[in-house]
Order: sequence, then C-alpha cells, then structure tokens
Amino acid sequence: MDDRVSDHASVLVDWSARVNEGDAVVVSVSEATHELAVAVMDALGSRGANPVMLYASDEAQRAYLRSSDGAFTGPRDHERAIFEHADCYLGLGGGRNTMAQADVPSETRQAFSRVHEPIREARLQTDWVSTVHPTRSLAQQAGMSFEAYQDFVYRAILRDWESLATEMARLKSMFDEGSTIRLDGEHIAITMDITDRIAINSAASVAYDSHNLPSGEVFTAPATVTGEIVFDVPMTIHDQRVRDVAVTFEDGRVTDLTAAVGEAAIRDVLETDAGASRVGEFGVGMNRGIDRPTDNILFDEKMSGTVHVALGRAYDACLPPGATGNQSAVHVDLIARMTDGSRMLVDDTVVQRDGVFRWEPGFSGT
Amino acid sequence: MDDRVSDHASVLVDWSARVNEGDAVVVSVSEATHELAVAVMDALGSRGANPVMLYASDEAQRAYLRSSDGAFTGPRDHERAIFEHADCYLGLGGGRNTMAQADVPSETRQAFSRVHEPIREARLQTDWVSTVHPTRSLAQQAGMSFEAYQDFVYRAILRDWESLATEMARLKSMFDEGSTIRLDGEHIAITMDITDRIAINSAASVAYDSHNLPSGEVFTAPATVTGEIVFDVPMTIHDQRVRDVAVTFEDGRVTDLTAAVGEAAIRDVLETDAGASRVGEFGVGMNRGIDRPTDNILFDEKMSGTVHVALGRAYDACLPPGATGNQSAVHVDLIARMTDGSRMLVDDTVVQRDGVFRWEPGFSGT
Repeated sequence: MDDRVSDHASVLVDWSARVNEGDAVVVSVSEATHELAVAVMDALGSRGANPVMLYASDEAQRAYLRSSDGAFTGPRDHERAIFEHADCYLGLGGGRNTMAQADVPSETRQAFSRVHEPIREARLQTDWVSTVHPTRSLAQQAGMSFEAYQDFVYRAILRDWESLATEMARLKSMFDEGSTIRLDGEHIAITMDITDRIAINSAASVAYDSHNLPSGEVFTAPATVTGEIVFDVPMTIHDQRVRDVAVTFEDGRVTDLTAAVGEAAIRDVLETDAGASRVGEFGVGMNRGIDRPTDNILFDEKMSGTVHVALGRAYDACLPPGATGNQSAVHVDLIARMTDGSRMLVDDTVVQRDGVFRWEPGFSGT
Repeated sequence: MDDRVSDHASVLVDWSARVNEGDAVVVSVSEATHELAVAVMDALGSRGANPVMLYASDEAQRAYLRSSDGAFTGPRDHERAIFEHADCYLGLGGGRNTMAQADVPSETRQAFSRVHEPIREARLQTDWVSTVHPTRSLAQQAGMSFEAYQDFVYRAILRDWESLATEMARLKSMFDEGSTIRLDGEHIAITMDITDRIAINSAASVAYDSHNLPSGEVFTAPATVTGEIVFDVPMTIHDQRVRDVAVTFEDGRVTDLTAAVGEAAIRDVLETDAGASRVGEFGVGMNRGIDRPTDNILFDEKMSGTVHVALGRAYDACLPPGATGNQSAVHVDLIARMTDGSRMLVDDTVVQRDGVFRWEPGFSGT
C-alpha cells in the first residue's frame, strides 16, 4: 500500500476526527475507496475505536432512486439510529464514475433529499469528517492523469495543519471582530453583514469546527449579502456542468441568476425549498496545496486565491448562541477567483489585494 | 447485467425476505457483490422499501482486528441500533479472497465474536436472509471455472421453491411427530432425541423460518445426540481446511473428536464458550440443484444426499414455546454423506435408504 494512504488515514482519524478509545465510529465507504477504508480500519483498530462501515454506492443508489415511485414514505429510523449512537462519522468519497447518477430525475433527487434530511441532521451532530480518496474517475473529472491526481490530492491533504491553522486564525479574528465584508474586483461587487457572526478556522479538524479533509478555509454565515458576483470557477452540480454563474443578491436572497452553462441545474437547486435561494455561507480558500480547480467542491472551495458563497443551509457554529441560521436541505457552494485588481475589506481594512493577504510577502494594499 | 442477477434479487426480496412497502431494510454488501447490490437496490426501490447498505469487507475487517489490542471494550450501540430498527436484513456474501482473514489470531476472532454477539442477536430478530453472489474467489474455492460456478449458484438459487417446500413438508411432519431419529451407515451410528422439537421446512423464505438463499433442508434442534459419526464432506472453518472430522457424542456433547485435516481449527471452535461443544442443530440436505460440495457451508449443508450437525447455537424456532436451546456465540455445521448402505429412521420408520427418500422413485426401504 502507498504510504500516503496510511498517512491519510492517520490524519483523518487523529488530526481531523480526534477519534478516542471506545468511540463509536461510522465509516462511509464509496465504490472506489476500498484501499483507504482498509487503512482507516487499521487506524481505528489501533486507537481502540468501534467502527461500522456503510456502503455508499452511486450505482446502487441510482438503481434504488430510479425504480422508486418517488414517494419515499417510510421513516428511515434504522439509518438515523446509526448516527444517533455514533461519536464520529468518516465519509470516504471517491467513486468510479462521477456521472453515475446523471439519469436520476431531479424531482426524485429532491424528494429523497427531503426524506433524508433527519439523517443528515443526526450525522451533523457527530464529529463528522468528509474526505476523498484519489480515484481514476476523479482524476478524469479534474482533467488529470491518475498519478498526477494522486500527487495533487495528497499535497492538499498531507499538510502542516497546525501551521495553517495559525495563519487562518488571523483572518478569523478579523471576521469575528468586523461587521462588514466587502469584495470588489472585475466581476465582483458584494457587501456582507457579519455582525455577531462567528468565523470558523477550518483547519480540517473537528477541534476547529472543521469537517472536511482537506480543508483550509475561513468561513462564516453572513446575515445578509447584497450585490453582484460572477462565480467563475467551473463546477458540477448534480452531475451537470455549470460555468460562470452570475448572481444578484438582495438582503441575502438570490434575486437574479444566469449561467453561461448549466443554468437549469442551479435553478433546480434553488427550487428545493425556501432556504435554497438564501445565502448560508461565505468562505475564503487558503490551502496552497490546492493550486487549480479540479471540479470537486471539497477541493475547489479551499483553493488559495478564491472565495465562495453557499446557497442553502448555514452551519450553526457560525451563529451566536440561540440564533438560527438559514435552513435548507441543500448546501451548494459557488466559487469565484480573487484575481488581480480584486480587494477584500473587513470594515475599512484591506485584508487581501490581488489575491495576496496582508500578512503575506508581496502584499501591496493600504 | 446477467438476467440471473435480477432474478436472484427478486427471489431474495420477494420469496425469501418478503419485503413489504415501507420496510426498513439493511443490505450488507461484501467486497465483490456490487452487481447484486445494484439489482437488490433496484428491487427494493420498486417495492417501496427503505434500505441502508453496510459494507462487509474482509480486508478492512482484517486490518481492524489485527491492529486492535483485542480488548474490544466499547459497546457497539450504533451497530446494534441499525438492526433494532430494521424489519429485514439481506446479507450479500461473496468476497475476493476467502482467505482474506487467515492471519487474524483466533483469540482475536473469538474476542470480537463475543463483543459482537448482541448485534448478531438483534439481527436474528429481523426477517434476515443470507445469500451469495457468485464470485471468482468462491469459484476458486469450489475448484470450478467462473462460468461453471455461476451456473452452479444460479441452479441452486433459481428453483421452484413452492414445489420443494411441499416435498420438504413431508419430512418435517415425520420429524415433528417422531421422538427419535436414528442414522446408520458405514461411518455413521447416531441416535437423536427430538421429542417435542419442531422441524423447520427450510424453503429459503422467512415465511418458513428459513434464512438462507439457497436453502433446501429440513432441520431441527435435537435435545440429545449419542453415537459416532464421521463428517466426510470437506469444509473450511475460519480459513482453515478441515476434512473427515470424527466425533463421538454423549448426551448432545462432544466427548471425543479427531480430524484428518484441520483438527486445531475445529478445536478452536469448541473452546469459544460452554455451548460450543454441544449440538445446536441436525439437518437434512434436500436441494437437488446442489450436486457437489463447493467448500461453502451455505451450499454444502443443503446438498441433496447429505445430513449435517451443527455445534453451538440452536435456533429458537426449533424449540417448544418457552424452552431454551443451546446457547453459544458460534454455530458451525459439519456435513456427512448418506451413501449406499445408509439409513435414516424416524422412530421405526425408514425415511431414507441409500440416500433415496421413501417418497422418491427407486426407494427400496422397509
């Protein structure tokens, strides 16, 4: 086994999920993540944890969804009970075909997403972490050879997380203390109210309220967003290519939206429920191991030199105690580059200019 | 997809597990059973069931068991909860290497088996069915080509189960009404007390208290077994080859045991707990689609012309209401051929002679 697979498992179990002896752990295994599952189970055994593995198969799920009448009547208590009794959840992503569910009707997806929401909520109550095993399918989606893609993935995952956490703490402090974030640039002109909101130093560990490996972003849940922005990093939503999504926000709500490619897919998302057309998150990518978009949200949103806005559900951790954030069954991130000429300001302080943070060499802001 | 895979899924879901609309179903997917899992999920979708898939990987389980210190302290409430909330369990067997766990120490296996018993008990409370997808690994173990093995498996599974159930009902009636079963033959001389015990017409359906697909056996839980028998059908126990196990029983307990091959493996089983050296089951193989041993207990014990005795746990369904059968964490079947010169008697009636039942053409008993 490639040593990097074991290293990945150790980072996941120890740094990210902070698994302790006796913990009840749920490991979700995708079709092509067997090798990582073996390494993770090895790590969990030596830590004295109690794991159960779920099989997350896109092909089997497609068969189920397509043959169903779409009513999805029954309660899924057995699935929810797993998570209600779990301390940690480790989601190992990585399939054999990112388009495996491309022919599932979107109404069926949405109906299933709604009936599945209690399970998602129960999972979010655990120390959950989502990661990705490099597969040929993901390499293909990224437009890369398999070996180059493996190098890319491990460069993003096997980082000095403590050091990145320290750097990201600077941005978190500014967001926590500030009341307004303003972005301007060639295709960007938005203002966000973040008064009383809490920023997450997303250092790929539940100890930082961070649930993705790799991570490397600072994010919060703005109370409102107003302005216009073109999300110029291409992506895939529900198996549909989406490119150059131009959005107008008023008071945190999407009031106008066009896309050069895939507009129907993003409009489907907006129609899931009432919260799907409201903003749930604003984030800043800070992982320098991620130097290009690979059409995989888990990586793309962490790419250094980008920002992202998510439509849908807000994370509770960003809200003041007692407050309720945006509710939705969906959470879809849209990403924009902070290119030359761009600025990010917190209140009146320039935090980033031309994609360079104020604490980095080469920063030329005021 | 081979039509037989879909047919297998339909028999499993409809005839065997009797899945109804709204049922909470747990599907356990082994490493090489993806294709069957897709067909089963397709069937479950069209029946309106609510499935969750578990991943049953021998390689991941090996990694977990080997890296563990063997203490297995924590409760496994999350795993038990799945089954406590489930109506049905479908176990799809079929891996990539039947020896995948060969280097796990037997003490570790036994310790895990003990901590896992509450989960097994919860699973046995559901409408559970175990089946097997034909894999290259199982073909190899059977000493057969892949294509010939697929034919063998589907011949055993895709049967006229109603008709076999009718035939097996005859033997069940004789066992239910009788008080003693006697077997004699070249290597067989045992007597079993079955007074008040209930025989199961194991027609591969939960409607018949039958939990294996394929099935095709009539079995019960004798109160006592006395005599000597050589189990001459070769088998594999915990990844160890076992052949010609000669056992002496007194009052249902193993008092002497030797084996031409693999004696240590079977002795390991006996030492699991107090009930492991007592008889839990006596069964008669009646599936004519199974015409040879293939080193797979799910098939071998159903082979027509054989009988088997299980050490360990008794099935409650064989016991009169209120009675408790043999308790153990294990249930290991040993199989013997009823060759020329053999007889099976219930009280004073010859039920089978030279491997031919009294209702079959060619029976020459008295």
